[in-house]
Amino acid sequence: MPATKRASRRSKPAPSRPSKDKKSTAQKKRFVFSFGDGRAEGGGAMKELLGGKGAGLAEMCRLGLPVPSGFTISTEVCTYFYANGRRYPSDLKRQVELAMARMEKEAGKRFGDSQNPLLLSVRSGARVSMPGMMDTVLNLGLNDTTVEGLAVASNNPRFAWDAYRRFVHMYADVVLGLKGARTESFDPFAQALEDAKQERGVTQDTDLDENDLKALVAKYKAIVRERCGREFPDSPEDQLWGAIGAVFESWNTERAVVYRQLNHFPGHWGTAVNVMAMVFGNLGATSATGVCFTRDPSTGAKEFYGEFLMNAQGEDVVAGIRTPLPIAELVHELPKAFKELGRVQKLLEKHNRDMQDLEFTIERGKLYMLQCRSGKRTGFAAVKIATDMVREKLITREEAIRRVQPEALNQLLQPIFDFAEQKAAREAGRVLTKGLNAGPGAACGHIVFDAETAEHWAATQKEAVILVRIETSPEDIRGMSAASGILTARGGMTSHAALVARQMGKVCVAGAGALEIDYVAKTMKVGSTCLKEGDWLSLDGSTGEVIGGKLATQPSEVMAALFHGDAKAKKGGTYRAFRDLLEWADAVRTLGVRANADQPDQAHVARTFGAAGIGLCRTEHMFFEGSKIDAMREMILAESKAERERALAKLLPLQRADFDGIFEEMAGFPVTIRSLDPPLHEFLPHEEEQIQALAKDMKVPAARLHAKIEQLKELNPMLGHRGCRLGITYPEITAMQARAIFEAACDVALRTKKKPIPEIMIPLVATEKELALQAQIVRDTATAVFAEKKVTIPYLVGTMIELPRAALIAEDIARTAEFFSFGTNDLTQTTYGISRDDGSKFIPQYIEHEIFARDPFAALDREGVGRLMRIACTEGKKSRPGIKLGICGEHGGDPSSIEFCNEIGLNYVSCSPLRVPIARLAAAQAALSAKK
Amino acid sequence: MPATKRASRRSKPAPSRPSKDKKSTAQKKRFVFSFGDGRAEGGGAMKELLGGKGAGLAEMCRLGLPVPSGFTISTEVCTYFYANGRRYPSDLKRQVELAMARMEKEAGKRFGDSQNPLLLSVRSGARVSMPGMMDTVLNLGLNDTTVEGLAVASNNPRFAWDAYRRFVHMYADVVLGLKGARTESFDPFAQALEDAKQERGVTQDTDLDENDLKALVAKYKAIVRERCGREFPDSPEDQLWGAIGAVFESWNTERAVVYRQLNHFPGHWGTAVNVMAMVFGNLGATSATGVCFTRDPSTGAKEFYGEFLMNAQGEDVVAGIRTPLPIAELVHELPKAFKELGRVQKLLEKHNRDMQDLEFTIERGKLYMLQCRSGKRTGFAAVKIATDMVREKLITREEAIRRVQPEALNQLLQPIFDFAEQKAAREAGRVLTKGLNAGPGAACGHIVFDAETAEHWAATQKEAVILVRIETSPEDIRGMSAASGILTARGGMTSHAALVARQMGKVCVAGAGALEIDYVAKTMKVGSTCLKEGDWLSLDGSTGEVIGGKLATQPSEVMAALFHGDAKAKKGGTYRAFRDLLEWADAVRTLGVRANADQPDQAHVARTFGAAGIGLCRTEHMFFEGSKIDAMREMILAESKAERERALAKLLPLQRADFDGIFEEMAGFPVTIRSLDPPLHEFLPHEEEQIQALAKDMKVPAARLHAKIEQLKELNPMLGHRGCRLGITYPEITAMQARAIFEAACDVALRTKKKPIPEIMIPLVATEKELALQAQIVRDTATAVFAEKKVTIPYLVGTMIELPRAALIAEDIARTAEFFSFGTNDLTQTTYGISRDDGSKFIPQYIEHEIFARDPFAALDREGVGRLMRIACTEGKKSRPGIKLGICGEHGGDPSSIEFCNEIGLNYVSCSPLRVPIARLAAAQAALSAKK
Repeated sequence: MPATKRASRRSKPAPSRPSKDKKSTAQKKRFVFSFGDGRAEGGGAMKELLGGKGAGLAEMCRLGLPVPSGFTISTEVCTYFYANGRRYPSDLKRQVELAMARMEKEAGKRFGDSQNPLLLSVRSGARVSMPGMMDTVLNLGLNDTTVEGLAVASNNPRFAWDAYRRFVHMYADVVLGLKGARTESFDPFAQALEDAKQERGVTQDTDLDENDLKALVAKYKAIVRERCGREFPDSPEDQLWGAIGAVFESWNTERAVVYRQLNHFPGHWGTAVNVMAMVFGNLGATSATGVCFTRDPSTGAKEFYGEFLMNAQGEDVVAGIRTPLPIAELVHELPKAFKELGRVQKLLEKHNRDMQDLEFTIERGKLYMLQCRSGKRTGFAAVKIATDMVREKLITREEAIRRVQPEALNQLLQPIFDFAEQKAAREAGRVLTKGLNAGPGAACGHIVFDAETAEHWAATQKEAVILVRIETSPEDIRGMSAASGILTARGGMTSHAALVARQMGKVCVAGAGALEIDYVAKTMKVGSTCLKEGDWLSLDGSTGEVIGGKLATQPSEVMAALFHGDAKAKKGGTYRAFRDLLEWADAVRTLGVRANADQPDQAHVARTFGAAGIGLCRTEHMFFEGSKIDAMREMILAESKAERERALAKLLPLQRADFDGIFEEMAGFPVTIRSLDPPLHEFLPHEEEQIQALAKDMKVPAARLHAKIEQLKELNPMLGHRGCRLGITYPEITAMQARAIFEAACDVALRTKKKPIPEIMIPLVATEKELALQAQIVRDTATAVFAEKKVTIPYLVGTMIELPRAALIAEDIARTAEFFSFGTNDLTQTTYGISRDDGSKFIPQYIEHEIFARDPFAALDREGVGRLMRIACTEGKKSRPGIKLGICGEHGGDPSSIEFCNEIGLNYVSCSPLRVPIARLAAAQAALSAKK
Repeated sequence: MPATKRASRRSKPAPSRPSKDKKSTAQKKRFVFSFGDGRAEGGGAMKELLGGKGAGLAEMCRLGLPVPSGFTISTEVCTYFYANGRRYPSDLKRQVELAMARMEKEAGKRFGDSQNPLLLSVRSGARVSMPGMMDTVLNLGLNDTTVEGLAVASNNPRFAWDAYRRFVHMYADVVLGLKGARTESFDPFAQALEDAKQERGVTQDTDLDENDLKALVAKYKAIVRERCGREFPDSPEDQLWGAIGAVFESWNTERAVVYRQLNHFPGHWGTAVNVMAMVFGNLGATSATGVCFTRDPSTGAKEFYGEFLMNAQGEDVVAGIRTPLPIAELVHELPKAFKELGRVQKLLEKHNRDMQDLEFTIERGKLYMLQCRSGKRTGFAAVKIATDMVREKLITREEAIRRVQPEALNQLLQPIFDFAEQKAAREAGRVLTKGLNAGPGAACGHIVFDAETAEHWAATQKEAVILVRIETSPEDIRGMSAASGILTARGGMTSHAALVARQMGKVCVAGAGALEIDYVAKTMKVGSTCLKEGDWLSLDGSTGEVIGGKLATQPSEVMAALFHGDAKAKKGGTYRAFRDLLEWADAVRTLGVRANADQPDQAHVARTFGAAGIGLCRTEHMFFEGSKIDAMREMILAESKAERERALAKLLPLQRADFDGIFEEMAGFPVTIRSLDPPLHEFLPHEEEQIQALAKDMKVPAARLHAKIEQLKELNPMLGHRGCRLGITYPEITAMQARAIFEAACDVALRTKKKPIPEIMIPLVATEKELALQAQIVRDTATAVFAEKKVTIPYLVGTMIELPRAALIAEDIARTAEFFSFGTNDLTQTTYGISRDDGSKFIPQYIEHEIFARDPFAALDREGVGRLMRIACTEGKKSRPGIKLGICGEHGGDPSSIEFCNEIGLNYVSCSPLRVPIARLAAAQAALSAKK
């Protein structure tokens, strides 16, 4: 790399100097992959090694598309970097030098050259795009010597010095870390620029001339000297290695780590570094830069979509500083380049068979592609695009199923604004302004102006908040995640706010330029209207409307079609896409999907969403209503079996009525009913005032209530007298519940001529004998009721596997149990020894320290809890080969857990009614992964 | 069985009539084993099938000893009986008839014969002798016809009618269940007898003549008619099958079940039934009956020991109604029979190679042996006999080791009365009376007169009680178990009280005839002294002294020899037997024994008892003393890392001093130290008054304390923020503890020139990463301290396996852990999902229902918890083949659990210091079982 040497003789040895490297095999490994001029060492399939960006660039080169030459340093270097005390593999320097030489040859320019210098962009690039990581350093390679060469070669000294100014600012911010060090409210570089403009009496950056910019560069460097305590690096080689190091360091910034946690990516993936020859969108009126999508990432509509800025550099678009023009306008500015872009985007979508997110720059009329990757999209767009592409025969149904993240379906169920109210608000002039419809849906909440407040209010006040920012940055991620909606004054459809909001499924209106936001006063003004922190605001992310005050919501198209028989909604594109996708999913999946439902209305929702049964009906939830809790309390206070039986006799008809409704709703489908589970003290009050009131109501002395409460008190109620242990102590409770179930089942069978299929589930079993004793009561009761009612109902008796011991002795238990249902909430609690109620004190820390990849209560722990489940399945089948296996813990609605359930051969998962569509899709994806 | 048919034509078909028996193989099986006249179908090794009694009888016959002929119905019939709705195998009746025919032939008498009737005794006989089961029905076969035959054949009508009277009473009580139905205070049979004596103006039973007895039989039958609503069965065959059924039924009486629970025998063992020809010890002045032991069952002294009654039936001795004479007196009464008995007892001990418990009857000068089994004995006797027999070359050392129940060693450590105090009490005339020294040791407690009160007071008042009874019966077992000592007014060394007390290891003085006990007034009188319920009483079970008031205790011989350098004690027989047995055990065992000790004094006890290290040193126990808890509270209240480190700096020297003492005591042995484990709220007060006081002491506002207490509150602290989770949140705590350990270890090494071996144990690990993070802190601290102190100490870092997940992922954890120590308390809690603190509400019920064979917190659950342990051992060795494995839960001191630990290949067990001898013996037994 002679150019470098020439420009910087004083440079320190590069950080890649040979070191005592234990891994000598690393010497021969390829860490650097070149691309450019119609060929590439990498390719589109190499995302793990090259990152998404690197793989996309390589693939575009292979397709012969116009890509500036460059190279990618693989993610393995990142992994090595962290595993070896932040050192590089010893061969890296040599490989980078070779790749640089190749670039210089192709570009016909030399890095650090004083005549015609090659400038570089350096970007991070993980497997998936990740906010919080170092984005880009542009114009790298400039110093006081090379800037003159650029001025001559571009024949545009102002452009050269502007590039130099931008470079020093950018490099200081992201590589030298000044951005992290300075406060939000004061940016010394911005201040210097402002000062310069004021001095010259101009308002626009573009009004500053070459000499102004020269002075500004000097001032910027002085800022660096003062703040960093050292000179800005002059040597291009130092600049390059500094930028590479900064990319790797940025992999572990707090923001990046938070993002990975939110999205469940592991830290060991690492990032690649992409080094590319600069092309310039800011070389005058025939230059431009932009970002586009092959389809609309908000709605999924099949329209070429995007935006651009004339005479600008790429980061201007993404950073949201200037609001760009819609892509269609480009035809008027640069028709030839626009036509070429149109051809390229079609080719890329077809080639990659997915909606693409593209970055481009037009340098003096010539189009260059800077990035190509599958585009992020809203849940709406994901479903729409996937089903559209099947109809277009671009992808198969199976691919469509794989493309949509199950969680994304949630968005389609969220409410939208009530049409009438919204119309009224419009007519009343409550629409303050309109921004870009960057994240669809309806959101309504209290205005907050910073991420911390958003997080804090959402956590402590449990109230919806709308985060209002001039623009967002990666520091705001936690706040964005906590907010219900995001509103920005600046930035386009591809700004940070828009990208992140869409990925999070948040409602977002971006680039609402009419807003005047004052962070200090905590106000936002639109014309004469001024709203302050805490005021209500409504955002329509589908229309871009910003509406003052609260606005009522109404069901989404999917909900309207499913639950309100809305004929128009049923013809809507979103509903049809949703319906089709789930139908295809049903055809593929082998895992059944049931719902956890305790009441007839919940059962109705579950059925409408396609649940094929109830996997968990908690009988105790029924006891908390009205007169039921009175009878329950009487039962608890009973001092003899006879008294208890009298109280239970009062509960019987109430329970029977509950089951009646559920059986009718679920006619022909199995309904798994769990016998009483929670400790009895949960049914008694604990505040003195309530105790006194109850004593009065029940006409018993308060002292007796106190004594009972004291007697039932437990140090660790989770591990106490609950579950089947209650049924063992009070067999008459189990008998009453069984009677209520069978009487209701017989009644429904006689009334509707459809036989319900009750599956009675005994909780918290740790030994076969417990189950056997309880099962006997259930079976004896069934026999008695069938004889009384003169009808027989098919039923099963089984157990929850929710204690490690139950899993371990499953062979014994399956002798009595006709089915197992994994109660993974409790199983996770006991396997880890972590109470769900108390774990919140340290689980967040555990995730930060990467002790937990995810909260084990949200995503099933395959190594521990999962291993017990495997043991239970294997052992259970030894004594009962055809045993029915299901899961009814919260994990039954989590896609990754569903995949595991499919893998170990469960028959069904059961989840909350609203998650049934997610489970159906996840089950289909699981079936497809299993096929692979 | 023609005799039967003759006597009872009207008899119902016997209960063994052929039934729809599914098990047709049962038809051919032998259920009945005959014996008598020098031959037997069974033998001494068949205890499981024939019960202890049946096997002993068969074996005596094979040895040619004089045993009345008879047969045993096997325990399999009992098992069949309960598995088949209380029916018998269909072939049983035929087999019983064949055996009866054989007996009749040998006896030259016929069952039910009107001339010379064969009478029978029917007894239960399980594998081990068991109070609570039906003991004996004697003289079976008598009715109004056969009694006349007996009168003629015996030439003693009074004897015949007395036998008939006894039979009706006994049969009504135990077979017809009248004993269970009547109250303690009123026995209609006793009343009738009393009335008869009064009517005749006599005081002794023996003063009643033939006609009185005839009238009494009629009266007894009338009582039966009235109370049972049916006639007393006249048919001998009915009588026989009734008695057989009663034996089987008695297997599941509450008393029998309680006894099994106390002694951990399973219900499925079942009992056998022994039917034997009657011989009569009550045929006049040349007849007698007695019970004897080949050695003293209290002390183990090699002396023929026992007692007898002239002209009596066997049950008179055992029931304790008449106080019998010492066996040595028999030489004066019946010298020939005594000589024969001496020969027989020697032969049987030698043949069976163990101390024997014998029952005999002398009928008109001829000796008959009625029972032979290994004798129950106290812990003292067990150790003494076992070691003596080794010296006598009767058994090997291995047999001696197997003979002694490890728990029995406990008795040898219990205190005895202070010699001086006891002497003073004697001189002061406080010795109220002297009874039989039936259970050695010293006991002091509050007098109670019934078992229920004993149980209740012991449970609720936590105070020692002395159970004082005229005589005890199986109903009293729970109360005897709860009492510290037992005193009876009647009964000998082989009475119920004496037998049960010895087996339970309770102090017992039996047959203190001078006592006048009044159950109603709740008083006991000796001469003019009257003590009432609640008064203090002291019992010396070794001398038989009953002493009024409290008496101080002093160490036992073993304790005196070990801990007080008492030269006399060191020469004592008990100490020497104890020492020898444990030395032999040490030579056999492969499992190491360590102790759980938190303080130097505990470590000293452990070492003295032979612990080879500390398996668990809990650092938090140290924090509860004096100024340590202040510093600890300061640490907890700290609001920043800096504040916390200041408080920890105060704790450091205090902790170091603790470890210093322990390391010095344990020089050269490993000391496993667990880092902080309990949740922090345990260190803060919870009562308002204490909170106020602490706030004042610490000079902080009470509100701040309240806030902290509230913040630390947990719903399920057992599953909360504790164990290594604290060390993850506050790494500085772990660092301080590690520093204290290593500084102390270095100091001790420099001072004593013996290097301690610390093993640092991280608790509650569920993931490898937790351990890795904590281990890193420990290792970094070690390196730093070694450099400062200029000395290096060998140490290990390991973890407790106390969560199911840790066991399941042991392969991962062992990559970091150098040892595993099973924390089976917590592991049992989480595997079962039962909190130790709350489980007491239902565990007793679970044991009653036989859901649990034993409390899983006392005896390791092999199927569940044990399976996890096996998994952990296997998986751990995959990644670290030489990993050190131990156990430090309470189970480490339980013999059955120790056997399991040996089986799965642990390196050591760790238990409380006082249980170290028990663990050493249990470990040796485990090694011997494994060899088999």
